[in-house]
Amino acid sequence: MNDRSALASLSPAAVRSLIRRGEFSGPTTGLCPGYAQGNLVVLPKALAWDFLLFCQRNPKACPLLEVADAGSRTFARSAPGSDIAADLPRYRVYIKGKLTDEPVNVSDLFDARPDLVSFLIGCSFSFESALLEAGIPVRQIEEGVNVPMYNTSIPCAPAGIFHGNLVVSMRPIPHRLVPAAVAVTAGMPRVHGMPVQIGFPEAIGIRDLAHPDYGDAVTIRPGEVPVFWPCGVTPQAAVMASRPDFCITHAPGHMFITDVTNAALRL
Amino acid sequence: MNDRSALASLSPAAVRSLIRRGEFSGPTTGLCPGYAQGNLVVLPKALAWDFLLFCQRNPKACPLLEVADAGSRTFARSAPGSDIAADLPRYRVYIKGKLTDEPVNVSDLFDARPDLVSFLIGCSFSFESALLEAGIPVRQIEEGVNVPMYNTSIPCAPAGIFHGNLVVSMRPIPHRLVPAAVAVTAGMPRVHGMPVQIGFPEAIGIRDLAHPDYGDAVTIRPGEVPVFWPCGVTPQAAVMASRPDFCITHAPGHMFITDVTNAALRL
Repeated sequence: MNDRSALASLSPAAVRSLIRRGEFSGPTTGLCPGYAQGNLVVLPKALAWDFLLFCQRNPKACPLLEVADAGSRTFARSAPGSDIAADLPRYRVYIKGKLTDEPVNVSDLFDARPDLVSFLIGCSFSFESALLEAGIPVRQIEEGVNVPMYNTSIPCAPAGIFHGNLVVSMRPIPHRLVPAAVAVTAGMPRVHGMPVQIGFPEAIGIRDLAHPDYGDAVTIRPGEVPVFWPCGVTPQAAVMASRPDFCITHAPGHMFITDVTNAALRL
Repeated sequence: MNDRSALASLSPAAVRSLIRRGEFSGPTTGLCPGYAQGNLVVLPKALAWDFLLFCQRNPKACPLLEVADAGSRTFARSAPGSDIAADLPRYRVYIKGKLTDEPVNVSDLFDARPDLVSFLIGCSFSFESALLEAGIPVRQIEEGVNVPMYNTSIPCAPAGIFHGNLVVSMRPIPHRLVPAAVAVTAGMPRVHGMPVQIGFPEAIGIRDLAHPDYGDAVTIRPGEVPVFWPCGVTPQAAVMASRPDFCITHAPGHMFITDVTNAALRL
């Protein structure tokens, strides 16, 4: 069942069910086209207020799709019937800020800690669909690699123990398509929204596009401009920098698939 | 200094300073044109998580402009240098859900309780400016009364102790201008966004437009359609229904004036 083509026509609930049964553990890129996928951050309740405030103060980098009740294992609005502890194909577990495990199921961890709060954060997959629909190329998809991401010199608004600089993703856009790329993404503020910088990486503290801080470098062709968007790695970086006692996230590329359409995120 | 014309050309910081010195205590309607005003809700930290979650889950009715740090008296991002306890012309104080006082300054209450968390919630004044700029009439402004507001049958997503139904405001719009009214407000999701209902009040549980649950009735002329938007009274109603031990809000019409332009709320 790690054959992705067999999954292409399944509903989000059906794919989550397969994952829950342990029958799929691969990346979710390209699954359930048209439906939003999200980043997962799970923290003890004692840290949840600070993190919710951090997201509220940095909504472009940390667009919250849903916050589950403390102790709940389901995103009741975005994916009724979901099981947060089993419906992602792979997780990362951090103890005191250090990566300790990459399991395919974290039910035992939820059972052991009834105080966990789960945050679902919007993901650029949603706006990349919109870019492609508008005829705007997305280079890292063409090249089959991860999007290049860079630390910037732009400080986030701090909240409690959480602070850090904005992380951005970069997509090279042909110069004649840059206005359309801005307009399309500006219309989707719930999944990162408009770019923060167009064409001047040094203005936000980025020195070398060929060596991203996360993800992979992509080709920038003649006539293309590097465009930078707020990235969902920002909240994860802020959490990790604070070395929380306990944290669970999705493994990179192994996202939570919601029942929410990308189209609904434009409303 | 309760002469409003003398205030018309002052900056938000200058008006807040006048209010702080006790030199103005009237409604803020029409002051500092072009700048966003906000609803205030102040709660003890023990209730703040539930309320922040309620706002996150009901963003159209409860669009958070800013949440101050626990114990802080300033909205550092929306109004640097502001004093939340003194910069609104009039407050309401509730003990166990019951209105006990309407003071012009609540510094003593903030001094007595270092655990208070202040929430600033977007206000329809901002989108009404945008409607007027687009040539769309706003009836309650023409008639010099409060906007009519109605309880609906639409449940909010509950969060902890907070629950309740959506409260909406109504503006009669000439039918040929309804599409423009939707488009203009849809572009401002941080101040309530698009309408929830156009023309069928009974579909959302409203029986009698002539008797609003809050505010004043307004004239609906032939050829006009009642259009209903999520209203910032929703979070206040949810808070009051839960009878919190302690709560401070702005007095109706006596809002917090920010340094944020309405134009910036469209980004």
